[in-house]
This record gives sequence, structure tokens and C-alpha cells, in this order.
Amino acid sequence: MSEHRHSYIANKSKDDYLKRLRRIEGQARGLQRMVEEEQYCIDILTQVSAMTKALQAVSLSLLDEHLGHCVVEAARAGGPEAEVKIKEASDAIARLVRS
Amino acid sequence: MSEHRHSYIANKSKDDYLKRLRRIEGQARGLQRMVEEEQYCIDILTQVSAMTKALQAVSLSLLDEHLGHCVVEAARAGGPEAEVKIKEASDAIARLVRS
Amino acid sequence: MSEHRHSYIANKSKDDYLKRLRRIEGQARGLQRMVEEEQYCIDILTQVSAMTKALQAVSLSLLDEHLGHCVVEAARAGGPEAEVKIKEASDAIARLVRS
Amino acid sequence: MSEHRHSYIANKSKDDYLKRLRRIEGQARGLQRMVEEEQYCIDILTQVSAMTKALQAVSLSLLDEHLGHCVVEAARAGGPEAEVKIKEASDAIARLVRS
Repeated sequence: MSEHRHSYIANKSKDDYLKRLRRIEGQARGLQRMVEEEQYCIDILTQVSAMTKALQAVSLSLLDEHLGHCVVEAARAGGPEAEVKIKEASDAIARLVRS
Repeated sequence: MSEHRHSYIANKSKDDYLKRLRRIEGQARGLQRMVEEEQYCIDILTQVSAMTKALQAVSLSLLDEHLGHCVVEAARAGGPEAEVKIKEASDAIARLVRS
Repeated sequence: MSEHRHSYIANKSKDDYLKRLRRIEGQARGLQRMVEEEQYCIDILTQVSAMTKALQAVSLSLLDEHLGHCVVEAARAGGPEAEVKIKEASDAIARLVRS
Repeated sequence: MSEHRHSYIANKSKDDYLKRLRRIEGQARGLQRMVEEEQYCIDILTQVSAMTKALQAVSLSLLDEHLGHCVVEAARAGGPEAEVKIKEASDAIARLVRS
């Protein structure tokens, strides 16, 4: 089954994800600085919301890519694999919606 | 007005926030590694959900502290300040709920 | 304690809430019709999202009103009641953010 | 294209959706009663959260069914239709996550 679990991230979008995740890492550091400097709670909260939105956008892109590659591929290959992949994707969507 | 915008984070919870934010920063780095190593999309998504939940928990703690200190203080002081604080807190809650 | 648990909804906004909730009830009926008529899943999902957003807006208005009246009043009254109210509001916000 | 937009809801789950949506409609009526009777804001908010969760569960089931039927079918049929379906599903997921 391991061959069905390789990454489906295209090289071009890989760089894009890394760039976005580095920016998110920078936001996490910025928040530490704001807490250190005892900045105003509401301003910190605004930054946390921006960071949450950025993370959510990464999730949606990953999910989109996953559905378009992995799920479509499994559906075309036929067999029980497609069902497994759909279940897995649905579970990931549920975690996303609830987080 | 600036004196009403100082931090209301207690020293004890300041350390706790910094610890949580450092862990979140670590999660952002972990995600970059997962993308670099072309790990499976669904596993990456699971980590993104965990990180989003951690961030959300930070927001809720900050908001809780803000309501308990800043809003209560403004309410006690009386005057238009209380209304400003409530509006500000409500807006932050709306951003949180929608993010 | 019961006198601290009466409604803080102003009469003017009470009518507004009732109007919004009747519309939401209508959306729930509209969704049943869509399912009955076997309409397209994605169109049904779009309606569910609209209804969820409408409900969320009701929550945010209620919370706003609650903070502005009940929490402010408790803070002014002083004593342990303010803390109870803040805890209660924070818990409601957490449920909202996680739902 | 219209034949690709028919409902993919199985008859068995159709009844289940109708039952869930009738219960949600009942929750909307219950909320109106709570507002009418000027019940406590926090209690109303708790009910709104429960209703939002119920709606969200309906969305997730619909999406699951949609991915498992419509998207898989389109992927198997091949051609540009699969891409259209994935795009449509991704957009619905984004609306869900953001609502």
C-alpha cells in the first residue's frame, strides 16, 4: 500500500507551499515578539486570526491537490482503493471543518 | 487612549503563551520538512489541523484573559470606554469565528 | 442567582432575532425540498453553507449583546459574579469557535 | 451537462437527510420560542451551537456522498468533466471550512 501514499504535490506547488509555510513560521515568531513586548491583546488576536487564515488556505490547497491527483487516480484504477481514498479525504475534510 | 491598550497578559501566562507559540513555530517547521520529504498529503493535512487547533486554543485563552481583565476593568471604570472595549472584543470574536 | 440569568435581549433586537430565525427555519424547509426533489449535491451544500453563515451571524449578535449588557453589568456590580459571567461567556465563545 | 448534475443521494440516505433536516427545522423553531420567552442568552447560544453542529454534520455527509459517487464517477468517465467536478467539490469544501 505504501506506493499509494507517496506525495502528490507537484514540484512547482512544493516551492509555493514551502514559501507559505516559512511565512507562517515567521508569523509564529512575530507573535512571540508581540507577547514578549506585552502588546495589546486585541492586536495579538488579530495576528493569530491572520495566521489561522493562512494555515487554512494551505489546507485547502493541499486538499484540492490531493483530490485532483490521488483521489482521481484511485478512482481510475478502480478496485477498493478508491473507497479507501474517499474515506481518508472525507475524514481530513471533517478534521479541517471542525478545527 | 494608549494606556488602555497595554497588555493584560499576566507574567505567569506570558511564559505559557511563549511556550505554546514556540511549539506552534516548531509545528510550522515540521510541516516544511514534511513537504520537503514529499510525505503523504493526508498526513500533512493532519498536522495542519493539529497546528490550527493549537493556534485556536491560544486565541481562546487570550480572549478569555482579555475579557476578564481589560473588559471588566473598562466596565468598572464606566464611561464610553466600556462600549469601545466590548465592540473591539466582539469584532475579535467575529474574526476568530470566521477564521 | 436566577435574576442574573434573565434575558438581556432588547425588545427591538428581539423582533430582529425572531425574523432572522424564521428565515433560518425557512432555509431548513427549503433544504428538505431540495433533498426531496433530488437536487444536485453541490447546490444543496451551497444552501447549507448560507444557512450556517446566517446562524453564525445570529450567534455573534447574541454574544455581542450579552457582553455589552450582562457582562458589563456584572463587572459593575462587582463581586464574584463578574468572574462567573466571564467564564460563561468564554465557554460560549469556545463552543462557537469550535462549532 | 444537466445529466451530470442529478442528485447522487441514495434513497436510504435521502430519508436520513430529511429526518436530520426536520430536526434542524425544529431546532430553529425552538430557538424562536427561547427568544420569545426571553430565555438566558447563554442558553440560547448553546442551542445555536448545537444546531450549527447538526448542520455541519449534514454538510460533511453530503460531501462524503458527493465525493464517493459523483467525483469517482467523473474520474472514471475521464475527460475534462473530472477536473470540473474536483474544482466544484474543492470550492464547496472551502465554503464549508470558511462558514
